[in-house]
Amino acid sequence: MRNKVRLSDSLKAALVEILGDRLNLSAAICERHGKGESHHPAMPPEAVAFVHSTEEVSAVMKLCYEHDCPVVPFGAGTSLEGHVAAVAGGVCIDLSEMANILDVSDGDLDCRVQAGVTRKQINHHLRDKGLFFPIDPGADASLGGMAATRASGTNAVRYGTMRDNVLGLTVVLPDGEVIKTGGRARKSSAGYDLTRLMVGSEGTLGIITELQLRLYGIPEAISSAVCSFPNLEAAVDAVMLIVQVGVPVARIELLDEVQMDAVNRYSKLSYPVTPTLFFEFHGTETGVVEQAEQVGEIVNDYGGGDFQWASEQEDRNRLWQARHDAYYAGINLRSGCEGWPTDVCVPVSKLSECILKTRELIDKEGLVAPIIGHVGDGNFHVLFIVDPANTDEMEKAGRVNQAMVDMAISYGGTCTGEHGIGMGKKKYLVKEHGDNAVSVMRRIKQALDPKGLLNPGKIIPEV
Amino acid sequence: MRNKVRLSDSLKAALVEILGDRLNLSAAICERHGKGESHHPAMPPEAVAFVHSTEEVSAVMKLCYEHDCPVVPFGAGTSLEGHVAAVAGGVCIDLSEMANILDVSDGDLDCRVQAGVTRKQINHHLRDKGLFFPIDPGADASLGGMAATRASGTNAVRYGTMRDNVLGLTVVLPDGEVIKTGGRARKSSAGYDLTRLMVGSEGTLGIITELQLRLYGIPEAISSAVCSFPNLEAAVDAVMLIVQVGVPVARIELLDEVQMDAVNRYSKLSYPVTPTLFFEFHGTETGVVEQAEQVGEIVNDYGGGDFQWASEQEDRNRLWQARHDAYYAGINLRSGCEGWPTDVCVPVSKLSECILKTRELIDKEGLVAPIIGHVGDGNFHVLFIVDPANTDEMEKAGRVNQAMVDMAISYGGTCTGEHGIGMGKKKYLVKEHGDNAVSVMRRIKQALDPKGLLNPGKIIPEV
Repeated sequence: MRNKVRLSDSLKAALVEILGDRLNLSAAICERHGKGESHHPAMPPEAVAFVHSTEEVSAVMKLCYEHDCPVVPFGAGTSLEGHVAAVAGGVCIDLSEMANILDVSDGDLDCRVQAGVTRKQINHHLRDKGLFFPIDPGADASLGGMAATRASGTNAVRYGTMRDNVLGLTVVLPDGEVIKTGGRARKSSAGYDLTRLMVGSEGTLGIITELQLRLYGIPEAISSAVCSFPNLEAAVDAVMLIVQVGVPVARIELLDEVQMDAVNRYSKLSYPVTPTLFFEFHGTETGVVEQAEQVGEIVNDYGGGDFQWASEQEDRNRLWQARHDAYYAGINLRSGCEGWPTDVCVPVSKLSECILKTRELIDKEGLVAPIIGHVGDGNFHVLFIVDPANTDEMEKAGRVNQAMVDMAISYGGTCTGEHGIGMGKKKYLVKEHGDNAVSVMRRIKQALDPKGLLNPGKIIPEV
Repeated sequence: MRNKVRLSDSLKAALVEILGDRLNLSAAICERHGKGESHHPAMPPEAVAFVHSTEEVSAVMKLCYEHDCPVVPFGAGTSLEGHVAAVAGGVCIDLSEMANILDVSDGDLDCRVQAGVTRKQINHHLRDKGLFFPIDPGADASLGGMAATRASGTNAVRYGTMRDNVLGLTVVLPDGEVIKTGGRARKSSAGYDLTRLMVGSEGTLGIITELQLRLYGIPEAISSAVCSFPNLEAAVDAVMLIVQVGVPVARIELLDEVQMDAVNRYSKLSYPVTPTLFFEFHGTETGVVEQAEQVGEIVNDYGGGDFQWASEQEDRNRLWQARHDAYYAGINLRSGCEGWPTDVCVPVSKLSECILKTRELIDKEGLVAPIIGHVGDGNFHVLFIVDPANTDEMEKAGRVNQAMVDMAISYGGTCTGEHGIGMGKKKYLVKEHGDNAVSVMRRIKQALDPKGLLNPGKIIPEV
């Protein structure tokens, strides 16, 4: 696809007229915008437009449309499946400077933000009001990017994903027209659900510039606990039962022994190097105690050790920071290597089988690859620590990845629970959804982006 | 649109070949299939196809596609906004005999059903397994129809709507092709969210033939209570505070004094004829007591009377049956009249203002019209009891309806929280979403149903 420069001099001049020096052509900036945080190779755009408003995005998009120039939206750059690679060149629209929190309503438990606001920024802003936004993919991603990839993370088992917590969006279409989807009502039956169509569309149907989000009151009581298990099977089986009996745990995270070792080294901690569950309980004082007791009984039955509690905010933050640093801790296991993260999600009754089988495959290939998981959802991740120059290693990781996906799909699961399709998982889309459903996706893409300018080469496999 | 017979002899013969006497051409059957439960006039199809499988729906749809014959899907016929009216004639596909429960997994808390299974049927089936499906729009609607209109109802404040509880669908497209959307994973980032696109599309994009649904364990403890208030404002203000402090109530229903009078008469009860809240609490034994105490304090502060408890299942059933009969009780207030139900949904902080203003408008016009509401969501209903032959009365109801919708939209709310657009609310769609967003909906409709055969004349306003 990359056979010509798409950014003509006349387009460049027109963009500079709108953006001035916020149209950046430097090689370093372009390079940085062509790569997320994973192993996918950098494919830099020809220019980066640092936009400040929906109107600017619309104006830039209109010009690119007139000039048939591809556009790739960019938030915080924490993508894991190559979403930001400018496979056809063109302009990257960087929304990170659209970082205003426009409105917070504690009466309605919602807020309106620009797309570049990050999850940490919104939660910092909300803390004094006693509110929080629960979706937490680990990285300090932008909320626009999180909506675009239908992100979820540690709290999803209790609070849902971006799908459930975006009330409405402002979106710029490929021709520069602006639409507003959804609204502030908690539910609506008024027409096609364009909000949910845009959530997870990875910038291929429109550019999200503003979001209306659901908020939650910070629970009266929160406590976190860590529990070690004799083996992986016992840990996962305990999770399955906790989910099945319906304890409303806010977070249930699994880290296998490889990941625990990595976390200990990276975060200077001394947890036992065995499969471990991290829990968080939200509720009233009594409710949290009750949940912890229910969970405590179950983990005991599966040979889990005593809970190590963290009830003070500072202790909890340290614990969850260690969990969130799992990715960086993993990469740190082999110097000079990169992370190839993959995630699948399966019906929870198949979780134990899938995770054990995956660990077996990894070990058989002789790879270094910790397993972590938002296991309450049936979602688990493998982080292959690889040297991208080592073809043999990359092939081995590819084989395990393929086997994981095949296994997940065979159980009615999905090839990606929360990272998205991007470039990395396009080849699995038909296997998961079938030719007819992917053909419907293609017709929607064609209807909304007939010139194929928005984030080309992502999600939809070429025919 | 209704200028010619769309069902040619050759199509008829071909359909009989597939369905035998399950292609029904009788006037009485056609008449019954052209009308839902509300005031919208009947517009009968030319034939009703009683289908038994996805394959049959596909075969019927393929034939209709070849013959350019419109198709209207039909579930239980409990639509309130004219969804089933065959405005362009053609064939009605009645899915009520596709009523098999295909699979229930208590390990994964999900099930697969054919589209004609009703909500009461599934819950009857699940009871012995200790599971339930929470979406409860009052009427014993079919699950396929509930998905098609994005239904919700009394439990939505705690469990969400059909949007949140459909994991995947089998859908027949206008050309007869079959797609499967979603899957059994609790979350996925794999491609466009076709499930959510189909949910709420009111049979205009595809015909839902099977559903994969989330289930929940029947809570350890359930208790219901009724509480009377001195006036409407006090009752709604109490609800606003309950929602804002985040008590996880399963149901919070408002019935105004007109509705309470109707319910007393219809269900032979003797509740005080004042604005009343119906509550239901789900949780552990301790949790339910705690929730009830929190709510009790709040309602006390607003002058609410003591809770009248119903903790035994039989008592609870009687209470909720009275609530669910509110529609029929309302219609019964004036003999020979029909119900014109309308619903809007607003941010909860505006609920009190919107409901009080609505009551004022109804009284000013001199209409008989109870107000009820799933108020925990900001959703409320007015049931105009009208004589459709009385133009003056219909105009008055139309004016109040319009004013309610205008008010809801001006606060960021929606013209329908759960009844759908159908024919009745098409004229409000642009006002709510804007020209550009409705144009996107039109492009999606065009992309998926280029011949415009599926449920023509619904949702999307004519250009």
